[in-house]
Amino acid sequence: MKKAVCLISGGLDSCTTVHIAKKEGYEIYAISFDYGQRHKKEIESAKNIAFSVKAKSHVIFNIDLSKFGGSSLTDENLKPDKDRSLDQIGKNIPSTYVPARNTVFLSIALAYAETINADSIFVGATATDYSGYPDCRDEYIKAFQKMANLATKKGVEGKTIEIRAPLINMTKADIIKKGLDLGAPFEKTWSCYVGDEKACGRCDSCLLRLKGFKEAGAKDPIDYNQLPNWYKN
Amino acid sequence: MKKAVCLISGGLDSCTTVHIAKKEGYEIYAISFDYGQRHKKEIESAKNIAFSVKAKSHVIFNIDLSKFGGSSLTDENLKPDKDRSLDQIGKNIPSTYVPARNTVFLSIALAYAETINADSIFVGATATDYSGYPDCRDEYIKAFQKMANLATKKGVEGKTIEIRAPLINMTKADIIKKGLDLGAPFEKTWSCYVGDEKACGRCDSCLLRLKGFKEAGAKDPIDYNQLPNWYKN
Repeated sequence: MKKAVCLISGGLDSCTTVHIAKKEGYEIYAISFDYGQRHKKEIESAKNIAFSVKAKSHVIFNIDLSKFGGSSLTDENLKPDKDRSLDQIGKNIPSTYVPARNTVFLSIALAYAETINADSIFVGATATDYSGYPDCRDEYIKAFQKMANLATKKGVEGKTIEIRAPLINMTKADIIKKGLDLGAPFEKTWSCYVGDEKACGRCDSCLLRLKGFKEAGAKDPIDYNQLPNWYKN
Repeated sequence: MKKAVCLISGGLDSCTTVHIAKKEGYEIYAISFDYGQRHKKEIESAKNIAFSVKAKSHVIFNIDLSKFGGSSLTDENLKPDKDRSLDQIGKNIPSTYVPARNTVFLSIALAYAETINADSIFVGATATDYSGYPDCRDEYIKAFQKMANLATKKGVEGKTIEIRAPLINMTKADIIKKGLDLGAPFEKTWSCYVGDEKACGRCDSCLLRLKGFKEAGAKDPIDYNQLPNWYKN
């Protein structure tokens, strides 16, 4: 059986991605990161998502990126943006950007994949609606693949640990439709940057998620503290 | 003043590398990794080396790569090779290989560099005498650079965090000569994979180090439990 290391953040994208891997017949080795983020609810969501694909194992990896600061997701002194209009979002790199986060996460996934002799790594990176993160672009994933081929014992032996980012060119609405098709448990996911009891409905992540559901013609199954007017209408 | 993030492992190579960065006029931001390795003495050596270059800061980053296993450096059930002949060493990838270690370390250094707006990252990777680690080759470093340019906010703005591996094509003997020229405190370094009170003089790392000193015509300033006959003569 083919093995895949799947990065599960707890959000819509990684939830859909791991269900794509499952559908393709991979045995799933899930990995999630506790990286000093504010919104710890992500980890609980990740556990539920790993359970939904009957993951063979689920590693929760501790890595304290808040040690460096520089992001409103990990730095106490910075706050995520809120109530931005949809056309503001995605125009520049937002305060929630965690320096080199995907590189760090993919590198650790690569170490895991090499150790268990996995065939592939699945990551939910997506360039559209990507909120301006540089490490969510197709060209970045391709460069990571080249580096990974040179970095590993498996690469030296002429084999490849394939980096799969099946959502890379999909819109949020397409991702939602795909996930719904595959029976991905979106009611278990968490996207909000704030991390209160209910999703805030005001941060970039909530807004992009709600926009995606609206465009997909579907109802977001999670609860929000407040909803933007454009979603209600 | 130019800023450099310098990876300091505590061994000869990173000791020489950080002294090269210092000589070039960089302000040094040191980073070392506590990654579940057996030989914790490395960390003490790293602290002394950071002190010797008057580092602006020294981050000791905890990352538990032993969680995955797969290397005799981090896995209790595996033991490093010993008493191998010099021509055995370097012929294949040894048991001490930690999957994707340099990729993980460089990625975290990249996160640090991006956060503090550093100009360069210095790493002591060396391809010759590299004991068969795939992630110590020039082509690997070049691929990492390309990936890093695409991964970061700084890269998007058209600037580069330069990955510097000044020892990449130097022999251990050349590295030792260079370090001695720069006044690098080799008496503070630690290379042994075993991690007893004194260096074992039998693991691959001790043997390559002793061979280097012999070829450089210099005396290794640290104490060994035992020395190979070819070194004594």
